[in-house]
Parts: sequence; structure tokens; C-alpha cells
Amino acid sequence: MTYCVAMHLADGLVFVSDSRTNAGIDHIATFRKLYSFGISGERLIVLQSAGNLATSQSVVNLLKQRLDGPGPNLHNVPTLYDATALVAETIREVIARDGAPLAGNTDLTCSFLVGGQIAGTPPDLYSIYPQGNFIQATEDTPFLQLGESKYGKPILDRNLEYETSLEEGLRCALVSFDSTIRSNLSVGMPLDLLVYHRDSLILPVGYRVTEDDRYFADIRRQWAAGLRELIDQLPPPPVEYNV
Amino acid sequence: MTYCVAMHLADGLVFVSDSRTNAGIDHIATFRKLYSFGISGERLIVLQSAGNLATSQSVVNLLKQRLDGPGPNLHNVPTLYDATALVAETIREVIARDGAPLAGNTDLTCSFLVGGQIAGTPPDLYSIYPQGNFIQATEDTPFLQLGESKYGKPILDRNLEYETSLEEGLRCALVSFDSTIRSNLSVGMPLDLLVYHRDSLILPVGYRVTEDDRYFADIRRQWAAGLRELIDQLPPPPVEYNV
Repeated sequence: MTYCVAMHLADGLVFVSDSRTNAGIDHIATFRKLYSFGISGERLIVLQSAGNLATSQSVVNLLKQRLDGPGPNLHNVPTLYDATALVAETIREVIARDGAPLAGNTDLTCSFLVGGQIAGTPPDLYSIYPQGNFIQATEDTPFLQLGESKYGKPILDRNLEYETSLEEGLRCALVSFDSTIRSNLSVGMPLDLLVYHRDSLILPVGYRVTEDDRYFADIRRQWAAGLRELIDQLPPPPVEYNV
Repeated sequence: MTYCVAMHLADGLVFVSDSRTNAGIDHIATFRKLYSFGISGERLIVLQSAGNLATSQSVVNLLKQRLDGPGPNLHNVPTLYDATALVAETIREVIARDGAPLAGNTDLTCSFLVGGQIAGTPPDLYSIYPQGNFIQATEDTPFLQLGESKYGKPILDRNLEYETSLEEGLRCALVSFDSTIRSNLSVGMPLDLLVYHRDSLILPVGYRVTEDDRYFADIRRQWAAGLRELIDQLPPPPVEYNV
């Protein structure tokens, strides 16, 4: 499985992905699920993937190979909407190629988050469903998730708004990943993250959070201790609860 | 959908269930999913149900109707293990009856948590899978869940141990329900709860937490404010995170 979060905030975009893949419980590996494309000063397009790894890797490879070709590609499409439609089209192309006749009943589908900014247009963020259609993040719903999304959703539902700062958004994302990693073995370290400042059109370097990352360890420790204290501080149930 | 939690703690048992049922998004209703059986001074057996409502209600009705009959029933089985096997057998009976020939492809399965204590034996807690087999809670894994379990699992994974007090267990359960209700429309108020003190063999009255319950409202408010403060207190990411 996988867990990816992307945020579309007033100040820019935040992307965090785990890197665990599994084909059965005895076939676990580490693969990057966050990819960035772009031309400094002109565009940044970030992809995050979940689902069938062969399909998602093929999609990214084809998108890369075609960057210098004559057809529409991620370096020449005019909008993020068109970029997302191109990714969706490439997913369908790979599944049509790989789906017949060897695949049998294997589920080849995958999903993608596509976010970024192209000069002259505002930042944008989309989620492509396994069916190939896609939705767009809005100010009302400023974050999108892929994969094992439920464990880490409450903390985002509670605390994330469009006006949330990029730093606070990233902290919420890290806490969301901490909760997910503790409760679900199929989501694992390292994490790949990337923060983009609106209108900068700079290609961010991003960062890989490994098991021995001190900041993430501090966050996890502080969060766990804080939650325990919060539970302790909650008032005892009243008499009518019959405890 | 449904969310139920049961805890098997050193001091006794804690049960909390939501009451929302839905057959499609436009057919939502309130049904109790927590049932108790017992004889004061001799036994307490609590059931919590998820899955097909027609099946789970039939199971509970048959178990009730048979309490005065000559065969094995929840008032005469010698152990909680036997009580759980009886519930599982009754699930199979109902599905065999209702499954043919009208049901078509309808999923008639349901799952149950079965917990309690019978005089002369320790408290016990089981989870019956839709397939009819069942597992038992242990000191290593002191809580079991049914239904929409993922949203509220991290807070239990982090804070619940076998030695946790009944009061703190209940507070953790209420926080777990708060997170689930906020993030998933298919889980809803009121909540039914019941706390049993080990070896008391008293049939607890339990309590129904309604929308206007002041204590639960206080807990929700205090928890939300506390989480926000915890997020704010987390240190900012270091330079190498490239935020």
C-alpha cells in the first residue's frame, strides 16, 4: 500500500509521500513515489503515485521520455489541467498495453496526485482516480490523499485550512504520517517531501526523511507525549455515565 | 457503516458503539448496535454488531427468544468462548435461512464483538469475523474494533494498554469516536456505552451519549483545542527540509 498527501494552500503546495511498496506481505520494498518535472522560472509539476507499481513507473518513464518529443508533454502543456489530463491519458495507454493478454485478473490500475504551477496560471492540484477521471483541490478542500488515507485523515480534517501556512501544513502532514505509520505496516519510511512557494516558479529540492532523521524523531516524540498529556487532562466521566 | 470498540483491560471491559446505519447514502437511520444479556451475580454478556442489519438483528432476536428454551443459550453456556461460538452458529443459521433464494448478490454477512464475564471464569472478549470464525483479545492486544476502524485506531494504538484504567480507556474510546465521526459520515451519534468492572458480575446500566451531551461536547472541544495547540508547539522544520 501507500500513503501520499498533497496540500493546496494560499501560500503554495506541500507534498509528502511514503516509500513502501508491497506485493503480498513477503514482498516489501522501498520505491520513491514522488516525482517532479519542470523548467525553472517557467513551471513545476509534481506527481505522487499509488496503486500498481509497474503501471505507475511506466507512466512516469513515458512522461519523462517524451519531454523532448514533438507531442504534448509535461514541459509544453499550457495548464496544470492539461498536464493532469496527459497523465491520465498515459495511465490508460500503459494499462491498454500491459493489460492484455498476460495480466489475467491482476489489478493494473493506479492513482496519481498532480500538483504544481505553470507561469501565468495559479498553483493547482488534482487527484486522478483509478478510473482515469480526476478532481481538483479547492479552497474548501485544500488537501488530497492517496492510499491508506483514513488513519491520518482526522488530524488534517481538524487542522488544515486553505489559509494554513506552508510550515504548519508540513507539520500536520508529518503528524498524519506518524499516525499512519504506527497503525499500518504497509506504509513506511523514508518519506519524500517537497514544499513549493506560490509564484516562485523555483524547482524545490525537496527532502528525504529517513529513519534516523532527528527532526521527525523529535516531532514524533513530542506529539506522542502531548497526546498522552491531553488524554490525562480530559475530565473524568460524570455520574450518569455509570463508569 | 458502523464503528464499535471494545476493550479488555485489567480492571474490566469497556464497550462503545455508534448507532448509524445506512443502506445507500439516502437511507440512513439510527439503530442500537450494543446489546447486553446476563443474570445479575452470575453472568454478563455484551454484543456489538456491524454489517448487514437484517442479519444482526435476527441473530440478536433469536438469541433472546431462546433464553428460556431447553437448548444452549446465552444464559446457560458455561464460558464466554461457548457464548461466542453460539453467536457465530446463530449468524450461520440466519444467513443459511435468508441467503437462499431471494437474496441474490446481497451481502448478508455481519460481524460481532462478544465480551463479558461468567462466574468462575475471567472476563473475556472476542471478535467474530464475517466468515464466522473468531479471535480473542489478549493483554498484548487489549482492544478490538468493528466497522470504520481506521480513523480512530491511531489514538488507541498509542495510548491503550492492558493496565489502562477503565476511566482512561473510556476517554480514549470517546476521542477515537470523535475523530471517526468528524471524518466519516457513515458513523454517527448517539453513542451507546457500557463499562463493566471485573468480577462485579453486576449488569451495568450503560449510557447513551446524545448530540447534546455536555460531557462529550466538553471532551470534543478540549481535545480539538489541545491538538491545535500541540501542532502549534511543534518546532519548525530545519533548514535541510527546504521549506
